[in-house]
Amino acid sequence: MNGAESLVRTLLASGVDVCLANPGTSEMHFVSALDRVAGMRCVLGLFEGVVSGAADGYARMAGKPAATLFHCGPGLANGIANLHNAKRARVPLVNIIGDQATYHKPLHPPLAADTEALAATVSQWVRTAARVEDVGTEAAAAVAAARAAPGSIASLILPSDVSWNEGGAIASPLAIAPAEHIVEAAIAEAAALLRSGEPTLLLLGGAALSGRALLDAARIATLPNVKLMAENFNARVERGGDRPFVPRIPYPIDAALAALAGVRNVILIGARDPVAFFAYPGKPGRLLPDSAVVHDLATPADDVGDALARLADAVGVGPYAPAPQAPTPDVPGGAVTPEAVAAALAALLPEGAIVADEGLTFGFALYPNTGNAAPHDWLQLMGGAIGNGPPLATGAALGAPGRRVINVQGDGSALYTIQALWTQARERLDVTTIIFANRRYEILFDELKNVGAAAGAASRALFDIADPAIDWRALATSFGVESARAETMKEFTDLFGVANRWRGPFLIELVVP
Amino acid sequence: MNGAESLVRTLLASGVDVCLANPGTSEMHFVSALDRVAGMRCVLGLFEGVVSGAADGYARMAGKPAATLFHCGPGLANGIANLHNAKRARVPLVNIIGDQATYHKPLHPPLAADTEALAATVSQWVRTAARVEDVGTEAAAAVAAARAAPGSIASLILPSDVSWNEGGAIASPLAIAPAEHIVEAAIAEAAALLRSGEPTLLLLGGAALSGRALLDAARIATLPNVKLMAENFNARVERGGDRPFVPRIPYPIDAALAALAGVRNVILIGARDPVAFFAYPGKPGRLLPDSAVVHDLATPADDVGDALARLADAVGVGPYAPAPQAPTPDVPGGAVTPEAVAAALAALLPEGAIVADEGLTFGFALYPNTGNAAPHDWLQLMGGAIGNGPPLATGAALGAPGRRVINVQGDGSALYTIQALWTQARERLDVTTIIFANRRYEILFDELKNVGAAAGAASRALFDIADPAIDWRALATSFGVESARAETMKEFTDLFGVANRWRGPFLIELVVP
Repeated sequence: MNGAESLVRTLLASGVDVCLANPGTSEMHFVSALDRVAGMRCVLGLFEGVVSGAADGYARMAGKPAATLFHCGPGLANGIANLHNAKRARVPLVNIIGDQATYHKPLHPPLAADTEALAATVSQWVRTAARVEDVGTEAAAAVAAARAAPGSIASLILPSDVSWNEGGAIASPLAIAPAEHIVEAAIAEAAALLRSGEPTLLLLGGAALSGRALLDAARIATLPNVKLMAENFNARVERGGDRPFVPRIPYPIDAALAALAGVRNVILIGARDPVAFFAYPGKPGRLLPDSAVVHDLATPADDVGDALARLADAVGVGPYAPAPQAPTPDVPGGAVTPEAVAAALAALLPEGAIVADEGLTFGFALYPNTGNAAPHDWLQLMGGAIGNGPPLATGAALGAPGRRVINVQGDGSALYTIQALWTQARERLDVTTIIFANRRYEILFDELKNVGAAAGAASRALFDIADPAIDWRALATSFGVESARAETMKEFTDLFGVANRWRGPFLIELVVP
Repeated sequence: MNGAESLVRTLLASGVDVCLANPGTSEMHFVSALDRVAGMRCVLGLFEGVVSGAADGYARMAGKPAATLFHCGPGLANGIANLHNAKRARVPLVNIIGDQATYHKPLHPPLAADTEALAATVSQWVRTAARVEDVGTEAAAAVAAARAAPGSIASLILPSDVSWNEGGAIASPLAIAPAEHIVEAAIAEAAALLRSGEPTLLLLGGAALSGRALLDAARIATLPNVKLMAENFNARVERGGDRPFVPRIPYPIDAALAALAGVRNVILIGARDPVAFFAYPGKPGRLLPDSAVVHDLATPADDVGDALARLADAVGVGPYAPAPQAPTPDVPGGAVTPEAVAAALAALLPEGAIVADEGLTFGFALYPNTGNAAPHDWLQLMGGAIGNGPPLATGAALGAPGRRVINVQGDGSALYTIQALWTQARERLDVTTIIFANRRYEILFDELKNVGAAAGAASRALFDIADPAIDWRALATSFGVESARAETMKEFTDLFGVANRWRGPFLIELVVP
């Protein structure tokens, strides 16, 4: 058995059975092994940013890692922006990076690059398989590293000669390091604070925003003066139906500071002490008031669910009682506004939908105004590297078959990784892409205002994408995706209804102001 | 003056007056400075790989660096593949990378990344401007580093607070380190070999393939038993008209070995000891026979033109006499084959055309069969990271206004950076893109055969892009580019003639077997 085959068989033995790939010559033996070994679903991305972003979306929904397959350092580099996002999402992910043969790389052939250095920028675990005998054990170690709580990026670099040499051995799955339990004293201290009646914010992140953990958090928030809030950006929030609504810290700096002004006590549960997305002259980097007392109860790597269950028991609250929901709004007509689109989503989101949100400026209003929709999951861009939404939606659909994925998407950011549409068509994935077409990088015009400057010729040349306007229907057609265009709320809601029942991908260009 | 303005003014003072950009929030002060300072042409790419590839093409034709503008580490990462190619092309290029404020980065905001580590993988010179007073001098140093022979990638990281702080100072241009002259003894030794009548190959690279240097090389090759050859990949070859035809080392390993079999003496002039693109089991990594004697006369960093001029004088050859060219072929009809397309290009290439060649498998026949075309330049993918052609063509058009750029382009590789079409439309660039649509990664099917394997289900899923087929006309339309489709040579030659007279970009989908 060669190294490549030992790798494929070890990945399968460790439960990794989806491979998102953009292979090249140095991966030929790996691909050939995939031909011989049954059980791995191979999904092609036309660009590596699609591969890495889809692996992120897959992991968020499937709860386990996919493998990626990249071609040498430059191929990996194309995937780095979405690996950065995936790392910030704390998902498990295993990169397989084919590379030059060990004896050939010193000759500095054209595609030779510092693959380890590139991988290290977005991975908690990086190894180069130096000997064919070790490929299996390295692969098992990579999967275990990726799956250790809360989830990590593991990158295994496979030189082509190590891949083709004979002598590979399948390795058994390794034990996964469990999440840390929180010591009783910390639980008791937090419980005392919560019971004291002191105004206290439970700031939730990571695993605290789904499943039983979320309901336990809501139980605790029935105590007087206790409130829930989620981090600015969250990998996956379960919401809608009778689940609790958890507001998020807003993105714009002034709104974020206002949302947290006056906070006196904070208990972090799977969340970090919140910081501004960027620095701005004269504004603080930390978002909490300096006077706030911060209790770091459970980090994202800890057993957040266990901590919340024990905390809820310790404060002595009853079982979760669904709060009465605001009625679902009527489907709105009239002009296209963020609030109207949010109302339409709230009214029409199909049960079990997955929203992949890279809506940026136009999308800011969506999350706050859709808590009363049917039960759904909400996935965000986690690392700020735009071009995440279409790949993320693609991967979410792969990871949760049978659920409709709704990608709410800014037009500028969509264009970084728009090749994802092709993979959606190729795999017949049930993804609806809603492009908010304002034909500019609105967020940059906003940021320029923050700088105190009016937009001049250079700014307009760099922020405005109306000349020429992207023809979104043609773009969808080019990649084999059905599409339509809406300029009014009536058109949008009609099309959204159609898209929800569509088999396979569908793109709606929504012209927004 | 703030740091950003001192940077813009210093770049202009150093002769850098084109900025290829994909900015974000941390670059707002730089963009605002561009609004206030006249003289910098700002060109937007919808994706960073377009920016970096266009900067490469610009430098190859303009002979001086453009500035790029990237947003933080992940934005830079998106540009790395084409920076890798640019580094292998040895072009001068200055990256400006906006980053988190110095005091904010330790808080680990979402977009924080190891920007220096990413830059170091593709740069000979990397610095982070730590103080506003130093921004001007760092910028001048970056330009000088980029312009040192033969050309380097310089990356200047600009934290946002260093950009917005007051106290910037414009720096004067620094002296550019000249290329090294070759010592007389080495010239004499090479001359003696050339005059000896021993069979000798002059292997040319870099600056040896254009201008006076190329003609001097051709003069030397009039000696008995002396032959010229170029490296496998060349950043810019001036050819056609009455210029000498220099064959290249072929890409496929067996053809490359065959082309160099029996070589006894090699003089490297701006070229490296040639190596295989990839390692293959049982085949050598170096392409020259072990028995060949290699004389490393001039490295790419040396003054190659001076070396060739002195060498030609030393061997005592006469002035350059244009070799009689093969007649330009008739415009071919019939079936679409690589040779027929080459003949059509040879017959119809407009004088002064620039060919940006990422034609890959279908394109292998083009260079060898177009030496008798009208005078033109030929630019290749230098680092093997595919997705180079459309951006390279875009930049070449920016760097050589008034000349038609012909991008001969494989379909699979075009899809990595196809957003370049939009910049071509935006800037009304005279670029003709010819997509060789075979709807598969043909090179990988070839490589799989080299592995000795037949393509199974996984290989076909990962190498075949026919389901769904890309609709190239729709894709061109989506980005504002006129297009047409050809299925026969007659259709192709008619369309190519139209495209050559078109104002602005034009895309031809050529359906190939």
